Amino acid sequence: MKLHHLSLLLALPALACAAKAPNPPPPMPPFGLGIHGGAGVILRNEMTPGLEAQYRAKLAEALAAGYAVLDRGGPALDAVTAAINLLEDSPLFNAGKGAVLNADGICELDASIMNGRTLAAGAIAGVHHIKNPINLARDVMEKSAHVMLTGDGAEIFAQSLGYEMLPNEYFQTEFRRQQLEQARAAEKKPGRKTAALGRFLSSADVSALEHFVREQKYGTVGCVALDRQGNLAAGTSTGGMTNKKFGRVGDAPIIGAGTYASNATCAVSATGWGEFFIRASVAHDISAQMEYLGRSVREAAATTIAKVGKLGGDGGVIALDAKGNIAMEFNSPGMYRAAKISGLPETVAIYGDEARH
Amino acid sequence: MKLHHLSLLLALPALACAAKAPNPPPPMPPFGLGIHGGAGVILRNEMTPGLEAQYRAKLAEALAAGYAVLDRGGPALDAVTAAINLLEDSPLFNAGKGAVLNADGICELDASIMNGRTLAAGAIAGVHHIKNPINLARDVMEKSAHVMLTGDGAEIFAQSLGYEMLPNEYFQTEFRRQQLEQARAAEKKPGRKTAALGRFLSSADVSALEHFVREQKYGTVGCVALDRQGNLAAGTSTGGMTNKKFGRVGDAPIIGAGTYASNATCAVSATGWGEFFIRASVAHDISAQMEYLGRSVREAAATTIAKVGKLGGDGGVIALDAKGNIAMEFNSPGMYRAAKISGLPETVAIYGDEARH
Repeated sequence: MKLHHLSLLLALPALACAAKAPNPPPPMPPFGLGIHGGAGVILRNEMTPGLEAQYRAKLAEALAAGYAVLDRGGPALDAVTAAINLLEDSPLFNAGKGAVLNADGICELDASIMNGRTLAAGAIAGVHHIKNPINLARDVMEKSAHVMLTGDGAEIFAQSLGYEMLPNEYFQTEFRRQQLEQARAAEKKPGRKTAALGRFLSSADVSALEHFVREQKYGTVGCVALDRQGNLAAGTSTGGMTNKKFGRVGDAPIIGAGTYASNATCAVSATGWGEFFIRASVAHDISAQMEYLGRSVREAAATTIAKVGKLGGDGGVIALDAKGNIAMEFNSPGMYRAAKISGLPETVAIYGDEARH
Repeated sequence: MKLHHLSLLLALPALACAAKAPNPPPPMPPFGLGIHGGAGVILRNEMTPGLEAQYRAKLAEALAAGYAVLDRGGPALDAVTAAINLLEDSPLFNAGKGAVLNADGICELDASIMNGRTLAAGAIAGVHHIKNPINLARDVMEKSAHVMLTGDGAEIFAQSLGYEMLPNEYFQTEFRRQQLEQARAAEKKPGRKTAALGRFLSSADVSALEHFVREQKYGTVGCVALDRQGNLAAGTSTGGMTNKKFGRVGDAPIIGAGTYASNATCAVSATGWGEFFIRASVAHDISAQMEYLGRSVREAAATTIAKVGKLGGDGGVIALDAKGNIAMEFNSPGMYRAAKISGLPETVAIYGDEARH
């Protein structure tokens, strides 16, 4: 009887609550990240099972490293640098170690990063001795009065911060040496219109050039992250284009083209034929569609990649909004990519017929 | 009588036309251009009548040169380079001859240009020997496969096109030498927080730095033009920031930040504290508001400059739409500016209380 009374007593508040439609406990805010390792002509029939396994394992490792930062409550910027550092250190991707070689046979690196909470940004272009270019881009953002530093000047800044200057040989790999030799041979081959690469182009040369350039641009890496505090960040790191000349810079170090982040909209990192991504202001255009049209991150990303395609360019983007919705859009045959959002299954993908979000 | 009949006969078609509410002859499509010579702390009480007259005369001369190209049916891109070349060649502005000196005591030049019809773009950063950087940016756009070339590489490209390599002394002026000495003295002065310029900033240093940087950034030049064919183009050229270090690059050579042009929206050239203009993707943001919100060019330009102000930056933009509407918006005390649109009076202005369109 006493027990009966007690259970009735305990049940009463619950009944009262049910009647008042009580507030459920607030849902955990979503967090997570997406990474890419470059877009391009990545086809199953040109891939060996062993190499594919290496790519998937390294993508999963970088994803896990970034996710661990977020899971323990760390900032989105730290997740971005943690994930990108692993990709920079892997010779599989065109960033840091294993970057493509320029026309002088050396690795020349670009990177950028942006903080979605403050719209602070940092970028470096054309460095030769910095192990993890994304870290230097972050130091430009956080420890200088500037957004973009270039060439030797960027490395003098790095030295003043105590960065180790690695010999360029650290970055160079036999695979990239072979790619450069192929590019040089294609340039010299009589009758090959691709000889025009990086020189003066007649419009007749463009279609041949397009094919050539497409084959040379795998592997820029990038990351977009959302932390438990609701802050977004994005970063991109690259070695650019094989056999590049004349201090060519693509979209990777250009804020608004290769990288953009705003808590009000999304974080974006792009990869692809950089010249087209600059002309279309890809990363900012995705943010602008969300801000001005209220489009979803996926619709905005797909629309912008379609614009790039219309201009004649190809590649892809990863974009993440403040609610944890992720887009991985590309118009190339494949894009190395992975994503892990809290409460959702992890994605690791390479080909065009696999998941895009 | 015969004459009377004839005049009646001649009058009849006119009457018939009047009855049918005839189409008036199509109005001449508008054409014209706007230019700027930099935004900053430009105050009447710090200006001499003689110097002011020189500025107004050079702005009018550059405006006339660009307008003449358009008036005879020439392309917007030619008007942009014609106007900017005159501003680059004048020691009054921070571009080409008379550019500010960097920390090494030399002039280091950036420029970019964009074709609104094709969305083609070209940019150079960190060149030391090119008389008219805007022309090299245009050659990058039209004669290379790339959008952006940097440093020595950009000059090797220029040499391959037959550009004369001028000694850096051509660009250097006594006035800029004095500015550099002042900047260096301010850096060294004990207790002056501006010593932090270009070094590592504590947040406490920022307000002092802001004042210092504001005083040092007059004079980036730019042009936006609309030709009789309805094509838009934009260009920007600068020497950057006095005493700049570490290969610092501002917004002037960044497509989407300092320069953007699309026939679908507008042509934009920006000037101001470049770091903030990059972070706000100023030039593309104005275009995006017109594309996605249907805003007028003036409302879009004013909104974006307000965003820059909210971030803590200052400066201005000129923006021209395909109907000949021009905006000259700035949140600094003054901006050297001028505009001439067909059928409208010419504007040449410097201070904040003069015309903005």
